[in-house]
Amino acid sequence: MNIVLLEPGDFVDEKRVRLLDRRLDHVRNVHRVSAGDELRVGLIGGRIGRGTVEQIDENFLEMTICLDADPPAPLPVRLILALPRPKVLNRVIAAASSMGVREIDLINAWRVEKAYWDSPRLSEQNLRQQSILGLEQGGDTVLPAIRLHRLFTPFVRDVVPRMIDGYLALLAHPGQQCEVPRNVSQPAVLAIGPEGGFIQREVDTFSDIGFTTVSLGTRILRVETAIAFLLGRLF
Amino acid sequence: MNIVLLEPGDFVDEKRVRLLDRRLDHVRNVHRVSAGDELRVGLIGGRIGRGTVEQIDENFLEMTICLDADPPAPLPVRLILALPRPKVLNRVIAAASSMGVREIDLINAWRVEKAYWDSPRLSEQNLRQQSILGLEQGGDTVLPAIRLHRLFTPFVRDVVPRMIDGYLALLAHPGQQCEVPRNVSQPAVLAIGPEGGFIQREVDTFSDIGFTTVSLGTRILRVETAIAFLLGRLF
Repeated sequence: MNIVLLEPGDFVDEKRVRLLDRRLDHVRNVHRVSAGDELRVGLIGGRIGRGTVEQIDENFLEMTICLDADPPAPLPVRLILALPRPKVLNRVIAAASSMGVREIDLINAWRVEKAYWDSPRLSEQNLRQQSILGLEQGGDTVLPAIRLHRLFTPFVRDVVPRMIDGYLALLAHPGQQCEVPRNVSQPAVLAIGPEGGFIQREVDTFSDIGFTTVSLGTRILRVETAIAFLLGRLF
Repeated sequence: MNIVLLEPGDFVDEKRVRLLDRRLDHVRNVHRVSAGDELRVGLIGGRIGRGTVEQIDENFLEMTICLDADPPAPLPVRLILALPRPKVLNRVIAAASSMGVREIDLINAWRVEKAYWDSPRLSEQNLRQQSILGLEQGGDTVLPAIRLHRLFTPFVRDVVPRMIDGYLALLAHPGQQCEVPRNVSQPAVLAIGPEGGFIQREVDTFSDIGFTTVSLGTRILRVETAIAFLLGRLF
């Protein structure tokens, strides 16, 4: 936890917060802070700054806070991800959120197993929780918008064309296509397929609306590795 | 499993292999292959190619194989990593190996908990197994060399200077230092600290022997995310 994230309900007055939940446990047991110590804090969706611990015991933590800085800049990217396996989903959301991704569209694809869409990990509550874990890691405050699209074609054909106006539209796909561009100056929409990749018809649908297919060479990376590798290269 | 990795003991003659273990289970239950199907195969430490399934049932899989291509090129990098938490170690080794990292030095640091060094995950057998999972993901055959260094100072002061001769020597550390260079033409040695970072004295030890401290800005990423992000940017 590299930042303690605050919610409006934590405030006892304009400059003081009181925490009781897992944040208290973490700060006590991992950071081992005592009264007088400073912690990095941020308001969810808002600014970041410092909190000075006034009181801490097993029941609550009280801090006076000063939020005087902007959170780190986001990455200028929108991710379109074929819905990963539930086991992988949490890590993907947390990692993307820690890197500053602010928009994630989870979509269906031929090789996405139907059962994945019934996972409780797709609940709004879990997606928010994983995003918060990522923000706590990355020291950010702004939750990504995460949208679910259970139908591939209507989303890609009817919605995505409007999303990519003014954006570099890239589809990451293993093979011998163009290399992934480096250090781009333009914001990007980056689409990444499921384990096993998008099928040719899906690749064609993306190409038809203006996506460039790019590859990392012949290696096939796990989705969480591929996202970080691609974002590191692009920006 | 994007490649079926073969060991010398699998060969019944020069062109035929017989598999009985988890590879058989995976190929049967995930790939669902039958006789006549082709699979991507590679000899551990050697070439890659295709296997044609001759016979497959619950007891064994027999293939004729043709190994006619080189494995993907490695990344020209040597990683020096503060030993991660055991839970994270497996993912780090598999991810690094899937991206083509061929040299990994796991080192001690002030913020590495002593207990991590007693983890059974540091056994040669487990490190090999995680590396193989990474190679199976990335479609590669060459195992990384993984070395353990329980003493920070003798390793960094006495061994690392010889390792970095002719290499770009970079220490990734959160903060306001130089940006991570992009698309470098030289091979690199990349050092990454533990959760919480290297302490100043450790950073100084690396600086003293010629490392440049670089940062990804103010965000702090989990080690597995940071490695992929940094490698994507560097190469």
